[in-house]
Amino acid sequence: MSQQTGAFTHLGRPRKLIDGLDRVSGRTRYAGDVRLPGMLYGKLVLSPYAHAAILGIDSAAARALPGVVAVLTAADLPTSGKVASSRQTTTLAAGEVRYRGEPVALVLAESEEAAADGAAAVNVEYAPLPAVASHAAALAPDAPVIWPAGAPKEGADLTSEHAATSGGASVERAGGPSNLHEQRRYERGNVAAALAAADLVIERTYRTPVVHQGYLEPHAAVAAYDPLTRNLQIYTSTQGQFGVRDEVARLLGLPRARVTVIPMAVGGGFGAKYGIIEPLAAAAAVAVGRPVRLSLTRTEDFLTTTPTPASEFRVRLGATRAGVMTVLDAEIFLDNGVFPFTLGGIVAMLFGGYYRFEHLRIVINEVLTNKPQSGAYRAPGAPQASFAIESTVDELAYALGMDPLELRLANAAGPGDPTGEGEPWEDMGLRECLAAAARHPLWVNRASECGPGEGVGLAVGGWPCGNTTAAALCRVDTDGTIRVHVGSVDISGTNTGFQLIAAEILGVPPEQVEIVAGDTRSGPFAGPSGGSQITYSVGGAVAEAARAARRQLIELASQLFEASVEDIELRDGQAFVRGVPARAIPIARLAEEAQDRHGGPGPIVGEGRSAPADNAPGFVVHIAKVHVDTETGRVTPLRYVAIQDVGFALNPLLLEGQIHGGAAQGIGFGLYEALRYDEHGELLTASLMDYTLPRAAALPPIEVVFVERPSPYGPFGARGVGEPPITAGAAALANAVRAATGARVLETPLRDEVVWQALHQA
Amino acid sequence: MSQQTGAFTHLGRPRKLIDGLDRVSGRTRYAGDVRLPGMLYGKLVLSPYAHAAILGIDSAAARALPGVVAVLTAADLPTSGKVASSRQTTTLAAGEVRYRGEPVALVLAESEEAAADGAAAVNVEYAPLPAVASHAAALAPDAPVIWPAGAPKEGADLTSEHAATSGGASVERAGGPSNLHEQRRYERGNVAAALAAADLVIERTYRTPVVHQGYLEPHAAVAAYDPLTRNLQIYTSTQGQFGVRDEVARLLGLPRARVTVIPMAVGGGFGAKYGIIEPLAAAAAVAVGRPVRLSLTRTEDFLTTTPTPASEFRVRLGATRAGVMTVLDAEIFLDNGVFPFTLGGIVAMLFGGYYRFEHLRIVINEVLTNKPQSGAYRAPGAPQASFAIESTVDELAYALGMDPLELRLANAAGPGDPTGEGEPWEDMGLRECLAAAARHPLWVNRASECGPGEGVGLAVGGWPCGNTTAAALCRVDTDGTIRVHVGSVDISGTNTGFQLIAAEILGVPPEQVEIVAGDTRSGPFAGPSGGSQITYSVGGAVAEAARAARRQLIELASQLFEASVEDIELRDGQAFVRGVPARAIPIARLAEEAQDRHGGPGPIVGEGRSAPADNAPGFVVHIAKVHVDTETGRVTPLRYVAIQDVGFALNPLLLEGQIHGGAAQGIGFGLYEALRYDEHGELLTASLMDYTLPRAAALPPIEVVFVERPSPYGPFGARGVGEPPITAGAAALANAVRAATGARVLETPLRDEVVWQALHQA
Repeated sequence: MSQQTGAFTHLGRPRKLIDGLDRVSGRTRYAGDVRLPGMLYGKLVLSPYAHAAILGIDSAAARALPGVVAVLTAADLPTSGKVASSRQTTTLAAGEVRYRGEPVALVLAESEEAAADGAAAVNVEYAPLPAVASHAAALAPDAPVIWPAGAPKEGADLTSEHAATSGGASVERAGGPSNLHEQRRYERGNVAAALAAADLVIERTYRTPVVHQGYLEPHAAVAAYDPLTRNLQIYTSTQGQFGVRDEVARLLGLPRARVTVIPMAVGGGFGAKYGIIEPLAAAAAVAVGRPVRLSLTRTEDFLTTTPTPASEFRVRLGATRAGVMTVLDAEIFLDNGVFPFTLGGIVAMLFGGYYRFEHLRIVINEVLTNKPQSGAYRAPGAPQASFAIESTVDELAYALGMDPLELRLANAAGPGDPTGEGEPWEDMGLRECLAAAARHPLWVNRASECGPGEGVGLAVGGWPCGNTTAAALCRVDTDGTIRVHVGSVDISGTNTGFQLIAAEILGVPPEQVEIVAGDTRSGPFAGPSGGSQITYSVGGAVAEAARAARRQLIELASQLFEASVEDIELRDGQAFVRGVPARAIPIARLAEEAQDRHGGPGPIVGEGRSAPADNAPGFVVHIAKVHVDTETGRVTPLRYVAIQDVGFALNPLLLEGQIHGGAAQGIGFGLYEALRYDEHGELLTASLMDYTLPRAAALPPIEVVFVERPSPYGPFGARGVGEPPITAGAAALANAVRAATGARVLETPLRDEVVWQALHQA
Repeated sequence: MSQQTGAFTHLGRPRKLIDGLDRVSGRTRYAGDVRLPGMLYGKLVLSPYAHAAILGIDSAAARALPGVVAVLTAADLPTSGKVASSRQTTTLAAGEVRYRGEPVALVLAESEEAAADGAAAVNVEYAPLPAVASHAAALAPDAPVIWPAGAPKEGADLTSEHAATSGGASVERAGGPSNLHEQRRYERGNVAAALAAADLVIERTYRTPVVHQGYLEPHAAVAAYDPLTRNLQIYTSTQGQFGVRDEVARLLGLPRARVTVIPMAVGGGFGAKYGIIEPLAAAAAVAVGRPVRLSLTRTEDFLTTTPTPASEFRVRLGATRAGVMTVLDAEIFLDNGVFPFTLGGIVAMLFGGYYRFEHLRIVINEVLTNKPQSGAYRAPGAPQASFAIESTVDELAYALGMDPLELRLANAAGPGDPTGEGEPWEDMGLRECLAAAARHPLWVNRASECGPGEGVGLAVGGWPCGNTTAAALCRVDTDGTIRVHVGSVDISGTNTGFQLIAAEILGVPPEQVEIVAGDTRSGPFAGPSGGSQITYSVGGAVAEAARAARRQLIELASQLFEASVEDIELRDGQAFVRGVPARAIPIARLAEEAQDRHGGPGPIVGEGRSAPADNAPGFVVHIAKVHVDTETGRVTPLRYVAIQDVGFALNPLLLEGQIHGGAAQGIGFGLYEALRYDEHGELLTASLMDYTLPRAAALPPIEVVFVERPSPYGPFGARGVGEPPITAGAAALANAVRAATGARVLETPLRDEVVWQALHQA
């Protein structure tokens, strides 16, 4: 239950997913389920090398196989000759491959099996070239430079949503050819002097590996093109159909209006589904004039999509003996992979923004390596930043002999304080979250709660949350059905929230509200389902649309009842004259009257738009209790508390579910998950046998605590909630291990051997 | 060109069909082209008798055929036990068949061929019963009564759109069991006295046969049902998805919101596609749990759909010697077929409404027969009514020795004069059409124009035109595309008109406007594409929506240019500051700015609704020149002029096309078309080998003349135009034959033998 439920009939009360039954009963249709007449099945031929010249591609044997229709290489595509500047603008490699898993050819066949046989029969001749597989190797003086003329530039990055602004940063490119794509510096005060003046300086270096988003549904898309009308249709698993449309149109040289992207149900995205395989599927469909389906296997998905960057944080944090944090100095390395994916801004913002530092210097090195380009992953950069800052702050508490929560509370940033980038924070509730943690029994009683080898740790996490304009529509049908049209993709239950918003405003049971989600042609505009922005942005448009419909219904009822509009109320699917319960008319009848009457108002339709002026950052404090087996280093999470400022819990049931999921991903990031590459850039963990996603049995009970500091712009005060719950897990777990054992683990995941080593160093 | 084009950039100028290229290149997808996974093909078993008891249905042999999945009879359907009250509410016959072609069983199979084999193998045992196949036979004293307890009643008739109101009528049902379903009487003045006082009384009896709509695409529908969610989807060739949805939902006992009707491209409707086979396709899909496709052959379509009723008009018309029509007295018989389809109101309205009669009595007998139920056919009842009144008036002119056009002009009704029902006409332009005819060279020079055996005749026709509320939406995309959302089905080019309306209002080239037509879930509400109402009703909503978008664009441009909104104009896809051509911004950029700006207006979306207070009747005068071969009776149309009050010719090219089509159908009605039944009710003309549709070679050149008397409520003054052009053809041709030969032909079509007989009687 939300804390503010009293005022509402439906909002703030738990409600199940609209599409839950479809999902669990297997009725939901995903992009990979689409079958079009004449459709061909595509199979990728991926580079086995992290760096190599392509000397030749012999597809004769593949073409001779029954069912194989075509083997496409870069030159066969309408995108041929275009410069790819990102994974999202890549189709097939030409001349050279620059990471293991780069697509080199696409086999199209009448069946998936024939396509796989064909792909196995394509003979690509490579000349291997030296590769750099880590930021350290990439920055070595004699390292081969991936892009001697600088990383290619062209067009907008689909995920620029997540790339923070460079507000307050000075950005430098290295002079000569280098794998250092960009260096950002954020600086205020006098760091050197402050470090010298500090009573204590904690200095540590943290490392995190490449982590994959781990969605259940690998990438899949079906593209169909009509050469006569130049209409291209793409059915895809995407978080944002409009961005995919614009990018595909640009790459293929088609007018946007000729490209229709139909977003199918998404089996998880977490930032990776802004358009990766769609340009290739579309280019192939254009090339062969038949619909093309491309659906990745798990291994292909691990090899050729966009995981989160590996990172290294070299941190110095200075404070007074009284526990005032005065200075933060850090050099950060982010492993972008083959194309730039610059998270520096957001990393700096968070890393240096949880606490008030008078003196701050953050230098961020964006490094290119022969690995898949990194990409957005649920609060991109935040788990890494939180792990580094929150481990350091924890160490500071130990060094000061202070309660780690009180230390944080004393230094925590609030609205208007500068972020690590230097801009002021919007309205946010970090201190409220810390206050809630201070009251929580697991924290209060942590000493008595813990047996041998057990410890409780906490950490802060946060995310600025996104904000895009949106439109929505609310129609009232003659059977009383309220139909709310939105352009957003429902990944996390947002449609269920919209249902509650419309039901609340129109005074109808939620069952009476149907959400109609559009494609790029039929739908209203909405931003992508990323950045924790859909409820925040689209929800406001839905509320406006419902209010517009409400006004029309009330106006009509007031005419029919010859009562003033102030005296009409909507409740239980009916319009009443206030205080005269006998004078009631169902909304269905009002809609019918509106629709039937010549010279009347016309069908009931409300239109709503929203464009929130500011973001609404979402903060969390997570508390973890772990057991550490000191003989093996095995960390077992025992209890977990996720405290989060959600602004207003529109639908507490789904918020809880989403926070469970986010916390689980944070625990996965902290304890289990890593894409490991060898020094040649070969991926060592290319299946779910090697890449450890946390399963239910590996997770502790997760308790969710809502903090509700209403955002000024979100509908009913709601904030974004999707990303914040992943941010603090790794740090909270590391801090719990520290509490349990005295050992500080400096890298994620907290695997047995890493913890064991830390224990033996401690 | 429209006469009012000067003020507009796009409106009133000829523009080709938006979907013309798709249609002529075979790309348009019709309902019969839909293929769903697991879909079964349906084939009907039709009654070979016009009246019989069903003693048994043996489907064992059919079921044993390979590919046959099910043989359904009435009892297998979820509609079992429901009373069918119309063809539209019929699924399969139970116990008794009442017309030749009534569906008795439905075979479902894996292929169309297997279904056909299965249908041939179903063995139905009938006991034939006596049938009545004409209104005369049905009204004979000893006639078997089809519905001894009265025709079944239930639910709304989908085509009630076309069934006129009973305003001014006294309606009677016969006392005992009878095939006379209803008798309507419209009466004013003192008819008996007026007839006695008249200087001249013309008395004639006219007959018209059953005529089919003759659309190119027979009925087709695909229905799919999900038993878990109870969602039913119907892809169909329909003129109005909302009506089909409501009726199918009612028949199957589903909530309307669970039924989605997706209107596919329509290959002609002309009133017959308001839902005939959809309930059966849907019921079958529910019964078997698999998608079901039902697509009629031409013969099935002739046998089991709803043609226009046969009619008999017994007319007496009295006038003074000076040419003042004083009295009209008529008894009319309409052959409804097996279920009531009461056109009496509209027939009376028109038949008695073209001219001002002080004294009037119209008695209309709605008669039930063992034939397919009649239904709407482009201006239902109007060709019959016009044939009767306009032949009679023509005879009066001969009798008086008056110019037939001057006689008409002297007596023609105008706005406010009573219709045959007694209600006053809305704003209408019959006199303007007659005035245009009086100026036309074919009429002016008719004496010198005609060689031996040739003659020129003219006739009046009219239609009240419909009017339904509608909503529309206008989105401006970031590439400048204007997307107009409507819920209407585009049969006659209405979308192209909407494109021009939006282009005109938003100052963009029409190419930049895209029309998005919705289904019952996604679309705005609109009435069915019948009653000549779409441009009139939906066009107004489109204009409102475009104006709302225009206001938002202008407001934003005024902010960006720091100019007042009055100084902003939209032209050529850009916003300008008036008088400062250098200060311009493309609409695309404005849309982008609106969509991107936090705290801005949000995406540009205009919402519009319309609910015209009154109808806008559309009148025509058609002039036909024919040659009559006096040896064979063969009538050859040589020239044809269609004069029509269109209010405002939004798109003259398509209006001309639509008037060509309507005139061609009128010529078909007048010269060629008839569904002939023998006395047992067997259809003798069940294919296009026997049923003569006019082909291009059988048609004369058709010249279109627009009269533009703006309607007070239509967009830019437009009126409905679809139905009026069919109304006058039969009468104009008969009057031309009279002019050529002196012979009055009293029945349609003017087949050789009929004309020959008339010549030899004369």
